[in-house]
This record gives sequence, C-alpha cells and structure tokens, in this order.
Amino acid sequence: MLIIAERINASRKYIAHAIASGDRQFIQNEARVQDQAGADYIDVNAGVFVGEEKEKLEWVINTVQAVTEKPLCIDSPDPAVIQALVPLARKTPLINSITLEKTRLEGILPVARDQGAPLIALCQSEDTIAETAEDKVRLASQLVDIVTAAGIPLENLYIDPLVYPLATNTQSAKATLEAIDRIMREFPGIHTTCGLTNVSHGLPNRKLINRTFLVSAITCGLDSAILDPTDNHLYGALKAAQAITGKDDFCMDFITAHREGRLE
Amino acid sequence: MLIIAERINASRKYIAHAIASGDRQFIQNEARVQDQAGADYIDVNAGVFVGEEKEKLEWVINTVQAVTEKPLCIDSPDPAVIQALVPLARKTPLINSITLEKTRLEGILPVARDQGAPLIALCQSEDTIAETAEDKVRLASQLVDIVTAAGIPLENLYIDPLVYPLATNTQSAKATLEAIDRIMREFPGIHTTCGLTNVSHGLPNRKLINRTFLVSAITCGLDSAILDPTDNHLYGALKAAQAITGKDDFCMDFITAHREGRLE
Repeated sequence: MLIIAERINASRKYIAHAIASGDRQFIQNEARVQDQAGADYIDVNAGVFVGEEKEKLEWVINTVQAVTEKPLCIDSPDPAVIQALVPLARKTPLINSITLEKTRLEGILPVARDQGAPLIALCQSEDTIAETAEDKVRLASQLVDIVTAAGIPLENLYIDPLVYPLATNTQSAKATLEAIDRIMREFPGIHTTCGLTNVSHGLPNRKLINRTFLVSAITCGLDSAILDPTDNHLYGALKAAQAITGKDDFCMDFITAHREGRLE
Repeated sequence: MLIIAERINASRKYIAHAIASGDRQFIQNEARVQDQAGADYIDVNAGVFVGEEKEKLEWVINTVQAVTEKPLCIDSPDPAVIQALVPLARKTPLINSITLEKTRLEGILPVARDQGAPLIALCQSEDTIAETAEDKVRLASQLVDIVTAAGIPLENLYIDPLVYPLATNTQSAKATLEAIDRIMREFPGIHTTCGLTNVSHGLPNRKLINRTFLVSAITCGLDSAILDPTDNHLYGALKAAQAITGKDDFCMDFITAHREGRLE
C-alpha cells in the first residue's frame, strides 16, 4: 500500500501562509513528520498561487528535498509546471495528475515517459464528471489506452476513480468502490489511488467516514491512497485493513505499528 | 444490516455466573442494554452447562423475554435443546445453528421449517473445517441444497462462512471475505452472518481488527453480524460502512447515530 502524504498542499490555509511567507522550517517540519509517519511519496502543491505557481512550487520542492529522502508527488494541473519541475526532483517523482483533457495529456505524457515517472490519472474529462461505476471504468479504460499508447507502462499508471460527497449522493462511494474493483481486475498490473476527504463533505464525524471508506476501498483492491499518515486512527485502519485483506504476512506490520503506538 | 447481540452467552464467565446464581436482574440488564443499543435479535446461549443446558437456557429465555420485545436468537448445537425451546419464544426466533452434521440437520431442520424460523448455518461438516474460500462456498452450497430441500426458503438461511484467527493464517480473513462475496452473488435472497472476535485471536488491538473486519465484510455483502451493539466504536464502524456501501439513504442513520452520541 503506497501512501502519498497529502499535507503540503496550498489549498490548506496554513500551508499557503507558510509558502507565501517563505517559512522553510514550517514546510520542512510538515515533510519530516509525514516522512517519519510512513509516507512513500510527499505530495507538494502550490496551486492557489495563480501566476506564480511554478516559482512557489520550485521553492517548496527544494525546501522539502533538503530534509527528506522520500520521493515527491508533484501536484499540478498545469503541464508547464510539471514540465519545468519534474526534472528538479532528486528521485523519480510521482506526477499528479492527468485527466482526459487534451492539453494535460499532450503536455504531461511526454514528461512522464521520458522521466520514467509514474502518474496519477483522474477519471475526468473536459465534459464529464464520472458519477457511476460504469462511467468511471469507461474513462479509466480510455486513460489506459492513451497512456500505454504514449509508451508508458501500465505499472506506472495510478487511476484515481474519484469519489464525490455521500451527502449529495448516497451511491457515490459505492460507485467508486465498484470502479476500483473492476479496474484492478480488468487491467492487471495497474494501480488505483484515491483521496479520502471528499467522500465525507457535509457529514458529521468526517474522519470516521474517511477511514471507513479507506478500509472498504482497500477491500476492493485499492493499493495506494492520498492521505495524512500522521493521523493514527487513519493509519491504524489502514494497517488493520492490510492485515484483514491478507497483505501483511504474519501481521508483522500491524504488530509493529502497535508497538510503535501508531494504531490509535 | 441485522444485528444479533452476542453478550448473553455463558462462555462469558460473568454471564455463566449470573445464570448459575439465578441473577435475573443482571441478565435482564444485559438484554435491555443490547435492545436499546440496536439489537435486532438477542442471542441466548447456555452451552457451558453440560447436562442442564436445556433448563438453564429455558430460564434465560423467560428471564430475557420479560424485559424485551426483541426476538431471540436461540443458540445451541443440541437439536433436543432447540426442539424444546424454540416453541417458548414469543416471537419467531433465529435458530443458531446448524452445520452439515447429520444429527443437527435431522433434529433442527424440521423445527425451523414448522416454526418458519430463520436459521444460521455454519460452513462446517463432521470432518471439514473450511479454510479456503472454495471450501467455504462448497459447504455453503451443500447447506443451501439441504435446507431448501427441507422446505425452508432461501430467505430464511443465514450462512456463516466462519473466520479463523489471522495470527495463525494470514489469508484467513480474506478467505471469509471472498466467500461472503461469492455466496451473496451465487444465491440471491440468501443472507450471510459472522462473528467477529475469532479473527483477532492472538493479536494486539483486537477491537480494531474486529471492526475493520466488519467493515470489509459489509463491503463484500455481509448483511448480518453477531456482535456487541453497545460497543460504540464497533457500532460507529458499522453505521459508517452502511453509509459507504450505499445502504443508508441520505446518511440519515449515520447522522442519527451521531446525534445520539453512538459513533465513538
């Protein structure tokens, strides 16, 4: 289970503030705690800085790389930002993300191919938000065709079927779960990923909903997630789900997490 | 999601003590708290009283029925006990349980048919403990054949595929999850049920493992479980799983449970 640590995202006000004020120590601490908490990739996003996203994200990348050996997940919808910044990554980064939008595909796929970088692909096109499992799988299938035709191996593709708030559609999480199950079966070797916070928008006890969705998604085959690994309740649910689904030999990871006080 | 409340089971020492000493108040309080916590059936078991199980269980049944309107789940492997006590239930009880053992089938199926009582059937025969998903589904299929041939509708059958400790077999929970998924797809109208505590035997943080297993099992289609509804963390996981899997319209049950302080 690949953990993409989500905290260094400028859509969070305190992160935007730290980036705007050049607070190296704050950003580096965010990187360090997520690294220590089990991140496999550290996501970096400066999308709110319209017009200066590239400069701000470059600063974040350099700031973060000074304190962690973990690879980055370079998070921008802008092909120009991806093109400029992926080469700055010391270790092959994860690219976050493409959709079926033509300009993103044309701008980002060559970089991913040339750098051998894995990439996240959202089940979303210019005109479609995929709400049903069928729509999500159909868009995933199109993404698979386009990405592999561009010379990128399926093993480097992380499909995010997206999840919409349960509060507005009771079936939204179920659609995502079914899509994960079908995508993992139909395209052996592919990966799936997902953010967790959207599902609980507008509901009470959001963290309970988020971690329950994570367990259900892992049960359906999800092998990567965008989350905050420093949340011990969430991390505990993840480790328990790995054990339950037969992916933790002798439950050693679970027992280790227990010994480290990471399960609650 | 049908909740079979598990606490009044004489394999728990404090319950055995209360039954042995005829402590009506204690047993009635156990019934009341489980009723109020959302039990659909109240399980009653006096199996440890060898030679006087029938008398003890009759006392428990009468004691419990004096304080709750909820139907009982009459829990004994002994056909003679089932035959004698099912008629004492004021509401049609759930019978817990049959296996593929001939004496249990011959003794219990006629009672279930004549009383129109639903029954739990364990994936277990005289000589087989079903460890793999294949074995569990094969035994479930045999149970379906035998039970329906006896004139009992599929809708009255609750298959328990059983789960064995993860600590001794990393794949044990996964086998049960796959069996639940396959049984629910192959026999439309059937039900599945499961106890949760076995899976975590020998591990730390057992309650975390138990409730994670419950979420995974609900994701795979489990529609009933034998559990302690007064455990709010477990109840919260159950309600969240119902919402995630699209079985809680507008998340109203989840929001109600939140308002009642039942989610944590």
